Amino acid sequence: MNKKDIDIEALYQGIIDGNRFELSKALTLIESTKPSAKGQARRLINQCWNQQKAAWRVGITGTPGVGKSSFIEKIGMAAIARGQKVAVLSIDPSSTISKGSILGDKTRMEQLSKESNAFIRPSPNKGVLGGIEERTFEAMVLCEAAGYDFIIVETVGVGQSESKIRDLVDHLTVMVMPGSGDGIQGIKRGLLELANVILIHKADGHNVAAATSAVKDYQNTMQSTLQSNQNRTVVMKASSVTSEGIESFLDILKIYFNESNKIIRSIRNQQHRNLMEAYLQAFIAEYATEKTEAYIKANLGNIDQPQMPSPINLAAKIFAELSLK
Amino acid sequence: MNKKDIDIEALYQGIIDGNRFELSKALTLIESTKPSAKGQARRLINQCWNQQKAAWRVGITGTPGVGKSSFIEKIGMAAIARGQKVAVLSIDPSSTISKGSILGDKTRMEQLSKESNAFIRPSPNKGVLGGIEERTFEAMVLCEAAGYDFIIVETVGVGQSESKIRDLVDHLTVMVMPGSGDGIQGIKRGLLELANVILIHKADGHNVAAATSAVKDYQNTMQSTLQSNQNRTVVMKASSVTSEGIESFLDILKIYFNESNKIIRSIRNQQHRNLMEAYLQAFIAEYATEKTEAYIKANLGNIDQPQMPSPINLAAKIFAELSLK
Repeated sequence: MNKKDIDIEALYQGIIDGNRFELSKALTLIESTKPSAKGQARRLINQCWNQQKAAWRVGITGTPGVGKSSFIEKIGMAAIARGQKVAVLSIDPSSTISKGSILGDKTRMEQLSKESNAFIRPSPNKGVLGGIEERTFEAMVLCEAAGYDFIIVETVGVGQSESKIRDLVDHLTVMVMPGSGDGIQGIKRGLLELANVILIHKADGHNVAAATSAVKDYQNTMQSTLQSNQNRTVVMKASSVTSEGIESFLDILKIYFNESNKIIRSIRNQQHRNLMEAYLQAFIAEYATEKTEAYIKANLGNIDQPQMPSPINLAAKIFAELSLK
Repeated sequence: MNKKDIDIEALYQGIIDGNRFELSKALTLIESTKPSAKGQARRLINQCWNQQKAAWRVGITGTPGVGKSSFIEKIGMAAIARGQKVAVLSIDPSSTISKGSILGDKTRMEQLSKESNAFIRPSPNKGVLGGIEERTFEAMVLCEAAGYDFIIVETVGVGQSESKIRDLVDHLTVMVMPGSGDGIQGIKRGLLELANVILIHKADGHNVAAATSAVKDYQNTMQSTLQSNQNRTVVMKASSVTSEGIESFLDILKIYFNESNKIIRSIRNQQHRNLMEAYLQAFIAEYATEKTEAYIKANLGNIDQPQMPSPINLAAKIFAELSLK
């Protein structure tokens, strides 16, 4: 074995033994963009795929400042007290913005990060444009193989991350501030419609009245929005200061995961098909890049030619040469 | 000819005759997602490719509210007065957000839209996630074939659109508010580094002093950021109210396009290579989607099976069956 080779077998063994250090190493491997790492990562993921335990895959999203970290810390601690193993994975599409990542900081969940039954993984700190879903999915698979049965995927509810998160989890909670409706808070109605739970956070101190009326507002909004009576959205309030709502939230999850087996299976099957397509596209993109580079090298050596032929024509030409079945 | 067939020859003739109605029709054709339209669109683009005139491809970006529309209207009018034909194309990645598109509205440039030498095209109003670059590139090619020699590509400088715009234009202007630096304005440093011009807008009324000191701030920032002395970023202020800076801005463009032939040619060659790769990926992806659907139908008919095989494995299997040379 080459000195630089990663010992996938040892990594795999470490993961299924529940070794968090090995799990971290494995996640670093799957985030690697090195071509040599890709094959190894795929092998490891496939091994772990067969070792997955039944786990809750729960998404939590909300605008910055709504208190996602405090809330996740609270429910994480409470779930551990109930005997679960909790993994927190962050998707942070804004991490390339120089203002600094608002996620990706372990110290945000100081108490939870000290628990031996918790694993907190910040978002990969690079400009991964595509592939956020795939990397997060792979991280889930590895965490589940490591015995974590409560996976929390956290993301900021802005931009396009809300559809990404919905495609990864069984259950989605959208956290909102006590206040007057989603319009003001910049939350997209579409996001609310994807939610299983709308959680009014910071329902403490001078916010109590506002939170109570927000519950009614959101209940009305959702009632008028959703045509169907099935699968009704739960609207609730909670506080990470007083711990109000923490145990109820876990109870709601417990009921959902006990009673919605068929829904969850169908959600996951659809998600896995989507992921399969994403992987296939990634494979194809890799291949297309290689082909294009080879073609350019062979045919377009001189970059200083006055005008390149039409890019569409060139692409069509290479495509024809692939002579696909 | 089928009644529903589009007469590509007539469209092409209309475009090179400078007919704006035919140009609009052609742009609608290239934005179409109908499979039957794709081949026609490609044929038209290739024809137009051979008719392109030398044109300025200029990108203008900035945060919402910085006054992009007013500024573009002013420089558009001034350029027409100088004898140019001006096309304004918008890239609006936020157009799917229910809060409403901030671009995509012709009436924003009321004066310019009445000019016979101006063509304003709002962003395609659908959730095109991939393909924004290709569609905008094709729109540029068509506009250039129609005789427009000053193409302005406008986008909001948030999210990931700034790298997209940089890959399409010869010259990029980032508009900022008079104020204290980019941190506060949420502009990414990376975006400033891509800029040829940093333009402090709204330098009028009670903003004059702030704008003047912002010029110095940005000059210092850029000086400390950029290692190289080549290709220095211009920092300037302008007002669409007083018209300060409008003529200077056009002069700066004129000098750039007169003196940077070699740089522009090399930028475009690289851009066209990237586009070729994007097209090739799209061709293969179309093909793979078909193959995937067939595979799913043949092998995964029963969506209710307890657990799907690993998505990576399935993707790898289908990829192998494509037998790409």
